[in-house]
Amino acid sequence: MRNLSAKLLAILLGLAPQIQVQADASEPVLLIHGGAGTLSRDEMTLERETEFRRGLMRALQKGYRVLDGGGTAVDAVSAAIVSMEDDPLFNAGRGAVFTGGGRNEMDAAIMDGETRAAGAVAGVRLVKNPILLAMAVMQDSPHVLLTGNGAEEFALARGIELRPPEYFRTEARWKQLMRRLESTAERAPTPDRVGTVGAVALDRHGRLAAGTSTGGMTGKRWGRVGDSPIIGAGTYAANPECAVSATGHGEYFIRAVVAYDICARVRYQGLEPEQAARQVILDDLVKMGGDGGVIVLGGDGEFSTIFNTNGMYRGVIDGPNRARVAIYLDETL
Amino acid sequence: MRNLSAKLLAILLGLAPQIQVQADASEPVLLIHGGAGTLSRDEMTLERETEFRRGLMRALQKGYRVLDGGGTAVDAVSAAIVSMEDDPLFNAGRGAVFTGGGRNEMDAAIMDGETRAAGAVAGVRLVKNPILLAMAVMQDSPHVLLTGNGAEEFALARGIELRPPEYFRTEARWKQLMRRLESTAERAPTPDRVGTVGAVALDRHGRLAAGTSTGGMTGKRWGRVGDSPIIGAGTYAANPECAVSATGHGEYFIRAVVAYDICARVRYQGLEPEQAARQVILDDLVKMGGDGGVIVLGGDGEFSTIFNTNGMYRGVIDGPNRARVAIYLDETL
Repeated sequence: MRNLSAKLLAILLGLAPQIQVQADASEPVLLIHGGAGTLSRDEMTLERETEFRRGLMRALQKGYRVLDGGGTAVDAVSAAIVSMEDDPLFNAGRGAVFTGGGRNEMDAAIMDGETRAAGAVAGVRLVKNPILLAMAVMQDSPHVLLTGNGAEEFALARGIELRPPEYFRTEARWKQLMRRLESTAERAPTPDRVGTVGAVALDRHGRLAAGTSTGGMTGKRWGRVGDSPIIGAGTYAANPECAVSATGHGEYFIRAVVAYDICARVRYQGLEPEQAARQVILDDLVKMGGDGGVIVLGGDGEFSTIFNTNGMYRGVIDGPNRARVAIYLDETL
Repeated sequence: MRNLSAKLLAILLGLAPQIQVQADASEPVLLIHGGAGTLSRDEMTLERETEFRRGLMRALQKGYRVLDGGGTAVDAVSAAIVSMEDDPLFNAGRGAVFTGGGRNEMDAAIMDGETRAAGAVAGVRLVKNPILLAMAVMQDSPHVLLTGNGAEEFALARGIELRPPEYFRTEARWKQLMRRLESTAERAPTPDRVGTVGAVALDRHGRLAAGTSTGGMTGKRWGRVGDSPIIGAGTYAANPECAVSATGHGEYFIRAVVAYDICARVRYQGLEPEQAARQVILDDLVKMGGDGGVIVLGGDGEFSTIFNTNGMYRGVIDGPNRARVAIYLDETL
């Protein structure tokens, strides 16, 4: 527990214990999330909790292997997100939530902080790993954002793995949709805040990157797209200021340009990324009525996870055998 | 010419003559654009130039009527943009450019600076006025961004006017596509910078709004979406800082989060909107290699049009019979 004094200070100041200071900036860091939302111990079984912690751990290990081998932040972010997309527990890739029409429509984005290159896809249905398609858009197209069938044609042309609709289907998500459709209490779909996945990384060369992947909201209609694939809203990275991946009620995150606003406060006001994230998530967004959170990483390796809900699946690794994960508000990373 | 001293100062300082200062903040202001790009007098016929000036004038009159009658900035922005969408000269609504597949796929966004509410649509094919659909998304849905067929289902459900594909087709745009498809010189579509339309307004109640509408790039593929419908990139408004609508090579505008970055510099650095826009468009964006421009309006009615190309269709009205338009770099508004 080398961050003990920072933690103590945070606790003494009444700041939630999710704030961390990364002391050794030359070491690579990978920070991930698997969604923020109402996560109370009462509603969680030990078995399910253990599964989530394992899923986060696996993603951390996959991503850190890239960083430890001298790979880029972009590749580490992608590896960690692929791991969570393949894991049916998370609302991304396999295990994505269903639209009102009973389909899976997924969104993803990735950004390279060193070059400010970015790639994103929205509304794809057959792409095994939407984050890899976002990578291909960034690295192998003149565009930033591709959507729908067109994005899938691009995937096919670039040899990105496709899967039939049944690959993405899980019984748990289907039941969620059934419950949603049976409930007439509210007209609007509410976000499945718990499940969107994201990662931010700093590699040995000091490059930052950010990525996010999601199935969006259960019961969503009309080709709704949230903040995840919107550069500046759900995903943003720019050296040396910060890398951000968000999760929450996407409409508010778009309107508040959350990811870029955090970096802008760092850039123009000289705030620490953690301070900037606190202002945006715990003040601005709360006033607007938007719930969710972000993971934030600075160019010096300082990281924090800030959320205005009572839980966020999250994890960090900043050295071999230094992976740790957390779920509830009162846990530390 | 009540802005004479500001103009002289701007010219003396070597600042391009498109900078203007709006002295009377209690009066409503409407500022519009019809795209920025390579606009040289040599390649323009007098007839075509006159048509564009008339089209801009019409849009200014339509929007100003709303403001003059005490209407909202959002309604004025929408009225001005509808006028340009209906005008086949501009690359928005009727007269939108064709995709590589020979279709018209349009994007639009609108944002209310007072409430930071926003609505946007991407990849719609049959909606007569995409800006009106964006308005409906903002005012009559729980979402911010709807895409593709889903957005059209929403349009149908909300009684938004639809038109068959041939309504949008113009011979000039079809020829542009044919030229593009015949040219094997380059693989990537280049933006039709000239034609995207946008408006920013300040109403009598001090509310700001911004909107943008476009057909995107001739020959675009893969469901490509540019910056216009991306809140923070091509469109952004927040009282009291500023309202911005952008036009240009959308990929760069997304990566640089242009519209919000301008407002962030106003908010966090205390810059005037015009200074902020100059930094972003003439410095940051030029370094990245992205060409285009923005129209920017501050909460005090100060307006400016900043572009790094040699022309931008633009116009402003800030009083009855005070409408004026410009095309080339050396013209003043």
